Amino acid sequence: MHRTARSQMGTEDKIVCWICRLTVITAFSLIGFIIGPTNVNHGHTSKSFLRDFMDEMQAENIKHHLRKFTRLPHLAGSQQNLDLAKQIRDEWVTFGLDSVELVPYDVLLSYPNKTSPNYISIVDHQGNEIFNTSLAEPVPEGYENVTDIMPPYSAFSAKGQPEGDLVYVNYGRTEDFFTLKRELGINCTGKIVIARYGKVFRGNKVKNAMLAGAKGIIMFSDPADYCADGVEPYPKGWNLPGGGAQRGNVLNLNGAGDPLTPGYPAKEYTYRYRPEDGVGLPKIPVHPIGYHDAIHLLKNMGGPLPPENWKGTLNVSYRIGPGFRDGFEQNKVRMNIHTNNQVTRIYNVIGRIRGAVEPDRLIILGGHRDAWVFGGIDPVSGAAVVHEIVRAAGQLMDRGWRPRRTLIFASWDAEEFGLLGSTEWAEDNARILQERAVAYINADSAIEGMYTLRVDCTPSLHTLVYDITKQVSSPEEGEEGMSLYESWHKRDNWTERDAPWISKLGSGSDFEAYYIRLGIASGRARYTKNWKTERYSSYPVYHSVYDTYEIVEHFYDPSFRRLEAVARVRGGLIFSLADSLILPLDCVEYATSIAKYASTIHQLAQKHPAAMEQYAVSFDSLFSAVKNFTVAAQDFHQRLDQLNTSDAMAVRMVNDQLMYLERAFIDPLGLPGRPFYRHIIFAPSSHNKYAGKSFPGIYDALFDIENTVDPQMAWDEVKRQISIAAFTVNAAAVTLMPVA
Amino acid sequence: MHRTARSQMGTEDKIVCWICRLTVITAFSLIGFIIGPTNVNHGHTSKSFLRDFMDEMQAENIKHHLRKFTRLPHLAGSQQNLDLAKQIRDEWVTFGLDSVELVPYDVLLSYPNKTSPNYISIVDHQGNEIFNTSLAEPVPEGYENVTDIMPPYSAFSAKGQPEGDLVYVNYGRTEDFFTLKRELGINCTGKIVIARYGKVFRGNKVKNAMLAGAKGIIMFSDPADYCADGVEPYPKGWNLPGGGAQRGNVLNLNGAGDPLTPGYPAKEYTYRYRPEDGVGLPKIPVHPIGYHDAIHLLKNMGGPLPPENWKGTLNVSYRIGPGFRDGFEQNKVRMNIHTNNQVTRIYNVIGRIRGAVEPDRLIILGGHRDAWVFGGIDPVSGAAVVHEIVRAAGQLMDRGWRPRRTLIFASWDAEEFGLLGSTEWAEDNARILQERAVAYINADSAIEGMYTLRVDCTPSLHTLVYDITKQVSSPEEGEEGMSLYESWHKRDNWTERDAPWISKLGSGSDFEAYYIRLGIASGRARYTKNWKTERYSSYPVYHSVYDTYEIVEHFYDPSFRRLEAVARVRGGLIFSLADSLILPLDCVEYATSIAKYASTIHQLAQKHPAAMEQYAVSFDSLFSAVKNFTVAAQDFHQRLDQLNTSDAMAVRMVNDQLMYLERAFIDPLGLPGRPFYRHIIFAPSSHNKYAGKSFPGIYDALFDIENTVDPQMAWDEVKRQISIAAFTVNAAAVTLMPVA
Repeated sequence: MHRTARSQMGTEDKIVCWICRLTVITAFSLIGFIIGPTNVNHGHTSKSFLRDFMDEMQAENIKHHLRKFTRLPHLAGSQQNLDLAKQIRDEWVTFGLDSVELVPYDVLLSYPNKTSPNYISIVDHQGNEIFNTSLAEPVPEGYENVTDIMPPYSAFSAKGQPEGDLVYVNYGRTEDFFTLKRELGINCTGKIVIARYGKVFRGNKVKNAMLAGAKGIIMFSDPADYCADGVEPYPKGWNLPGGGAQRGNVLNLNGAGDPLTPGYPAKEYTYRYRPEDGVGLPKIPVHPIGYHDAIHLLKNMGGPLPPENWKGTLNVSYRIGPGFRDGFEQNKVRMNIHTNNQVTRIYNVIGRIRGAVEPDRLIILGGHRDAWVFGGIDPVSGAAVVHEIVRAAGQLMDRGWRPRRTLIFASWDAEEFGLLGSTEWAEDNARILQERAVAYINADSAIEGMYTLRVDCTPSLHTLVYDITKQVSSPEEGEEGMSLYESWHKRDNWTERDAPWISKLGSGSDFEAYYIRLGIASGRARYTKNWKTERYSSYPVYHSVYDTYEIVEHFYDPSFRRLEAVARVRGGLIFSLADSLILPLDCVEYATSIAKYASTIHQLAQKHPAAMEQYAVSFDSLFSAVKNFTVAAQDFHQRLDQLNTSDAMAVRMVNDQLMYLERAFIDPLGLPGRPFYRHIIFAPSSHNKYAGKSFPGIYDALFDIENTVDPQMAWDEVKRQISIAAFTVNAAAVTLMPVA
Repeated sequence: MHRTARSQMGTEDKIVCWICRLTVITAFSLIGFIIGPTNVNHGHTSKSFLRDFMDEMQAENIKHHLRKFTRLPHLAGSQQNLDLAKQIRDEWVTFGLDSVELVPYDVLLSYPNKTSPNYISIVDHQGNEIFNTSLAEPVPEGYENVTDIMPPYSAFSAKGQPEGDLVYVNYGRTEDFFTLKRELGINCTGKIVIARYGKVFRGNKVKNAMLAGAKGIIMFSDPADYCADGVEPYPKGWNLPGGGAQRGNVLNLNGAGDPLTPGYPAKEYTYRYRPEDGVGLPKIPVHPIGYHDAIHLLKNMGGPLPPENWKGTLNVSYRIGPGFRDGFEQNKVRMNIHTNNQVTRIYNVIGRIRGAVEPDRLIILGGHRDAWVFGGIDPVSGAAVVHEIVRAAGQLMDRGWRPRRTLIFASWDAEEFGLLGSTEWAEDNARILQERAVAYINADSAIEGMYTLRVDCTPSLHTLVYDITKQVSSPEEGEEGMSLYESWHKRDNWTERDAPWISKLGSGSDFEAYYIRLGIASGRARYTKNWKTERYSSYPVYHSVYDTYEIVEHFYDPSFRRLEAVARVRGGLIFSLADSLILPLDCVEYATSIAKYASTIHQLAQKHPAAMEQYAVSFDSLFSAVKNFTVAAQDFHQRLDQLNTSDAMAVRMVNDQLMYLERAFIDPLGLPGRPFYRHIIFAPSSHNKYAGKSFPGIYDALFDIENTVDPQMAWDEVKRQISIAAFTVNAAAVTLMPVA
């Protein structure tokens, strides 16, 4: 009721108003009485516990956790990372979790050879190495005495010492190799290609290089992609120094987890493929370098000048090659790669709070613990946030709280080696998860910029994300009294509606097996940069030795209030998912999103009007399915509004429908050639693991149209994928209809 | 308390005893009061309704249904079969089901060409047809004026008119072709092979013939396999007449359903593969003949005499060929096959009774309606039984009963063409079924012999089957007052325990998609022959025009009491599954069975002790998993005994564990090369679709040991399959452990 209107009311109106108020109060009391028995937290509502939970999480504690967990490197498979696992286990026990266990798997990891370092040389015509790339990054101040810093390498690179002419392939994307072949007439067969990092997952670059026939691939961080304007290199600023390089695995796992045990957990008794039959292992040597070294390789390259948008910001011509320019043409490049793959034990830490009412319904908060070196941002900013969430949950339990559903906290190992810890655990527990998991919230790096919140999640979580962020304060200076939602909304609005921007989930972190393989509603939240103005990939010191505690403390979040805000968002999400009587999942949002995606993919197809007609390609079945789904979702929520929430069985049944909605989008046959990517609405495209695509099956089929020699077959595949998508959306609609 | 002990009690003891009695009575009243609200059938217990339900089903009604449904042929895709579907729908509505619908799919069927009949000739050296097989079976008395009797044919045969020399291949099994090649040195390439029906699914014979290079295959019914001793041919007895032949599909679908839409329901908008890319379609002509025709093809064959156990009971030598003996060697055999594949609309009838308490839990009773001709036994003896079960359920509803869970009744179409109706519906509803289906009871032919009951089911149903059969009377004359259980037990005892013999589920009927693809607890029950003395496959007139109403009325079940008993078993099973507070599934029986299977498969492997040692093949992980599963199952049932059954949520949670146990044995990756066979404990072997194998992955891998050129690879596959089986059994164990 509006304030000015009330001041003009007469006596009669006031009486009516009071009757209304009393009715509302009585109704609420009755509801409270009715739902009482299913709420074990007598005398304290779930909402007030949520407030307590939020308030309990504090910047200072997160700072303390971050400091504690970043003193030493903790690479997957190392003693330090096992020690850290034990420390986390012990602290989670102290915080008050019902159980905490270390869960080991034996997976294929990859390390440089300790006695034969990896490097790249320029060799003269006599085979003399006249230039060698650096063997390690200059160690940052304060860490000079730390041992066991693994130098930059490409994990799972093939071994070998290929020698040849360089070809510059821009970002090494599918389209870059097309440009090379079709427009520039350059053949990469038998060459060593050099690609700049960025735009797509490095594993895709390596796959493309192999497909193009290259015998090796070098990847470098160009300042154009890894330095912000007006920012100093670390330690004076947060840009990547010239001696820094990006580590990372170069697998093409497509969700398989451990390369030797695809589909099954890597236990002691598990059958392992021979290394040569492992999933996604590159067959050529791969190595990463920094831009100081890159200059030496690039500066004398010959061949044509590249397209303008292929040029980075180094002071070189970015000529494409092959090979060096006149005067240097007898020089070759040699890669010296001695990296070894070896089966190694890793450890997940799994903690649990047993649900009071529905212990067989699971909400999972998981993030990785392993880091390439210190992991100040990646992943410990995230792990410190999880630690604080676990501590706060323990505090609440001391005050008598216990969630309605079971909470699971996971500290994953070996994420950096291909999401191995999280995927093996998902494989190990697939049946339980498929039957019982409500949602998975990912907790990788909690910050990658200083601008605003970034959320990627499944559409059914949109509404909850907005609801939670309205209950968190903005961490930004000068925004006192403003909610995180308002601050975020101001900075990043959705183009088509008045709400903060939320992205699709791609891949590249531990939610993958839960979301794309198993179909569990998933989301992630972190603090990010301004994507409109900051064009570098990820954040500059990503996967380098310079990703330290200090970079967070000095630059990204000196007050630790941004990490606190992220903690409250992640924590608020799992709290609400675990404790709400009705699961806070919004099927209508899913319908709205799917409708939008169907239009988008249809528009993409319509770039080929003649072929669409020739091959009788129609999206009618998909649009019809989207309509069915939309009606089913709307009807479902209308019925939900009228649900008798005191009927425990009725509540359980609608919650089961909500929980299983995401599962309905899983196709057991998987996407073409990718049996572990099974989500029909969301998966990465085949061409970039990082990019979440809607209707990925249709998307990939349309992508292939460009490059086929058999258009009939290619368009048949588009039609097949439309049919699968239409069927899946229809089938998902049926799961929301009245049961029986 | 023991009677004699009580007679000696003193006064004090009597008082104590009365207190005990009162306590027990009070406790039971209280429990009754507490569980009251979940039982909607006030004033009448589930048990007494079960008694009423059983009594309601009557022989006379089944006879009436059978007579009504067998007057005309009702081949899948025909107008008659659509008419029958509508009739069944209308009657089910009248019986009182909550809803009944016709659910259409457009699947690939196969029919002879109406203007070019199929037949086989012997041709002389000039190409003259000097002998032709018959174009149709002699029509039985009383059916002379019936039109649309489809002559014997092999559905989905390739078209063609191959001509060549005959080779007799016994049953056409894998081992028969080995014997031919290795022991007899006979090459089938370019030959037309002739196989007798029996032992394995006809589709496997066709596959084996193709693999051996044959250009056509003829299948005949040998009296040795299709005639019982001392029985007259129909109509004087129930043996197959010499002019009768066995129709049947010759696909190798391995659970794919419609060959053109594997994995997805064959809806109007569904993408269809081109016919040449269809799943499981044979590439060579195939045709079935009776033994009168077979004599003409076999009598002049040349070549060596076969092994003794290759000889049937025709008055011919069963020489192997290739080709005819001296004097006839210029004669060839020519197949004339003009059968067409065509996409055709089929109709399932789906009826529902909505569950009162858990409408989202489904119990399915399904059986096919389509028949090759009249289908007296196959399938109408089963369909008539379903009809009577539906009628009885309707009667119970009139008396105020409504089951706790939802009952679904299905009349499947096109079972004879590869389980198409049931598989398409399973594909269409896979998500709902996976989440909500408790059990599937199959209702194909209800009788195939006159001896006793035959039950094939998943181990967790053993106990319920025994329980139900104890509540049904024996239908046999002279066994008045004896239960079906006792009668069955007397006739067919398990070798290793004192209980009636229950088989594993194989395939060849509509439970396949529900059990082997989706992992829904399944079972089937019918009246059968004495397997120890009656050695013919199936029953003699199987898939011939002689499978009529009269063969049931005159020979198999003149009183219709055997069909009544089967109705009560099938009906009792679905009633108990739908109405019991706790699902009547026994996990300990599953454990016992798995333990037995593990020993059996281990023994099979131990036939190769040297290789086992050389390749370090160990079953330890499997035995350890079986132990884990056994402990988990025992503990689960112990906890179940102490469950507070008045706690609705606790009851739902244990029921979910029971429901999902069967699902836990599903491997989403499927068996090697058979993506739709996903059950790790039960599936047909690759070599015979009819035969249910335990640990089929291991079984097939061991089978391949015999025939490999790379023993290392073959034994690696055995090890991989052991590892998968061990993991699956371990994972299933976890689903039975306390939640969270």
